[in-house]
Amino acid sequence: MDPRAARLFEGRNLAFLATVMADGSPQVSPVWAEYSGGLVLVNTAEGRAKHRNVLRDPRVAVSLVSAQDPLEMASVRGTVEGVEPDPDYAHADRLASKYMGLDRYPFRRPGERRIILRIRPASTYVMPEPGTGGR
Amino acid sequence: MDPRAARLFEGRNLAFLATVMADGSPQVSPVWAEYSGGLVLVNTAEGRAKHRNVLRDPRVAVSLVSAQDPLEMASVRGTVEGVEPDPDYAHADRLASKYMGLDRYPFRRPGERRIILRIRPASTYVMPEPGTGGR
Repeated sequence: MDPRAARLFEGRNLAFLATVMADGSPQVSPVWAEYSGGLVLVNTAEGRAKHRNVLRDPRVAVSLVSAQDPLEMASVRGTVEGVEPDPDYAHADRLASKYMGLDRYPFRRPGERRIILRIRPASTYVMPEPGTGGR
Repeated sequence: MDPRAARLFEGRNLAFLATVMADGSPQVSPVWAEYSGGLVLVNTAEGRAKHRNVLRDPRVAVSLVSAQDPLEMASVRGTVEGVEPDPDYAHADRLASKYMGLDRYPFRRPGERRIILRIRPASTYVMPEPGTGGR
């Protein structure tokens, strides 16, 4: 992945994950994510629309901008190569630390099962490109 | 549209627009947007992937979060019912004012034609819902 995109994932920048609904239309929502070991790792809960969508069609896109400079952005297209349980909230806790400065994921709910979408990037688009402006 | 979603569009909150590529996979990127006259209006440039995509398949999704409280979010699914030219940058200027506090859109480029995607919302999802937590 382009190092500028990787840096955006290191920062406290919300990511927006796009998936495809059963009827072929797009869906997008904000997620907590990190880039690790060559994969974009998104934490979400079992049974949500994005989870059901990627089980049917693993193709996704993720975009995020820098909180410091909103003209700095990355859009990644790729494929969910696996969905992993996060039973002890280890991943959710790590992202709560990154995004909220907390030791523990603060939104635990009875019966909710956190999962990790493991996304293999296929292409990455980064702005600004040399010689271009903003939006 | 849910008034909480409308309020998010009033604020200086970047929106993320998801479209569908020719192969049916999703694409997502940050855009400037506003909510006006019952439509989500997105300003972009002619010929970009998102423009080509919506000409082929007008179904889109838009999501945004509050810059003040990142747990406050909206996801809108809808259809591009028209693409309108913005030849004198009136719309781009208005969004530059909202997002950057500038009188004029600062990224004018020779040969670039700004356009407005007119999105009719079909469904809106807003968080937080009563009794739920965050991500």
